[in-house]
Amino acid sequence: MPKLDLAQVPQKTGSIYPEPYASMMKGRSSLRLGQAGGLTQFGVNLVTLEPGALSSLRHWHLNEDEFVMVIAGECVMVTDDGEEIMRIGDCAGFPANTPDGHHFINRGDTPAVFLVIGSKAREEVVTYSDIDMVLTVTDGTNVCTHKDGRPWTPEGEENG
Amino acid sequence: MPKLDLAQVPQKTGSIYPEPYASMMKGRSSLRLGQAGGLTQFGVNLVTLEPGALSSLRHWHLNEDEFVMVIAGECVMVTDDGEEIMRIGDCAGFPANTPDGHHFINRGDTPAVFLVIGSKAREEVVTYSDIDMVLTVTDGTNVCTHKDGRPWTPEGEENG
Repeated sequence: MPKLDLAQVPQKTGSIYPEPYASMMKGRSSLRLGQAGGLTQFGVNLVTLEPGALSSLRHWHLNEDEFVMVIAGECVMVTDDGEEIMRIGDCAGFPANTPDGHHFINRGDTPAVFLVIGSKAREEVVTYSDIDMVLTVTDGTNVCTHKDGRPWTPEGEENG
Repeated sequence: MPKLDLAQVPQKTGSIYPEPYASMMKGRSSLRLGQAGGLTQFGVNLVTLEPGALSSLRHWHLNEDEFVMVIAGECVMVTDDGEEIMRIGDCAGFPANTPDGHHFINRGDTPAVFLVIGSKAREEVVTYSDIDMVLTVTDGTNVCTHKDGRPWTPEGEENG
């Protein structure tokens, strides 16, 4: 039967970010529901943010559309325009190639859960709004650089 | 701000089906949330089924992946394997080119709401499991035929 048994979907934690950013993603976990359902054309992830957790560094996608709906709890969405509270049923769309970074923060004391859907471009560039970092993804391989293209090095360590 | 105001999203009703099937879709409405959020790469629709309503004729897609999560109420999912109750938070994935038709029926006495995501193939063929009808979509133009390719005519009217 196609109904998913969410208890059988592996919980994914960790981060593709280099330090010190990877450590900032503690308290975030996700279930890859689209993958569990055999889908390959877009991603569907059910993300849980424990109190205090971030969804990601604030970012925007060059090639991939993204959509979010809050399923449980409450979180704060941050964009260039500032902060906005997102409650159960609230939605937001982030069209590709729109240079306004977004992320979600759980400032409450109970978990927040949202569904996030993203297309799967073969090549993708993710730009981080608040730090000097860009992530380039080519056929599933992730490479971080500075925004001018130099290989990524942690802030303050370039001349260290 | 990217948060959608759902009260401003037009409610879509009606059906692309020919009669007598179009009339069977009464009680179904949807909000095109992805479109409202400026997305073009996949569709995100919030579908409401009033008591007794169907989501669609039972069908499968040749080229497009589809994903469903129930958001409110309860409905019955029908596939080749039979019926399964879908409650809030329940999910199902329907990979492209998997010839097992599905649809959802609200057999309860309160509205059921689900989120449905589908990719957007330029060409699509939708096969209806329980009737002799196929829908071919090319660049947004819909054409119904019988499964052997003959132009679609309502059952019993071919020789009328």
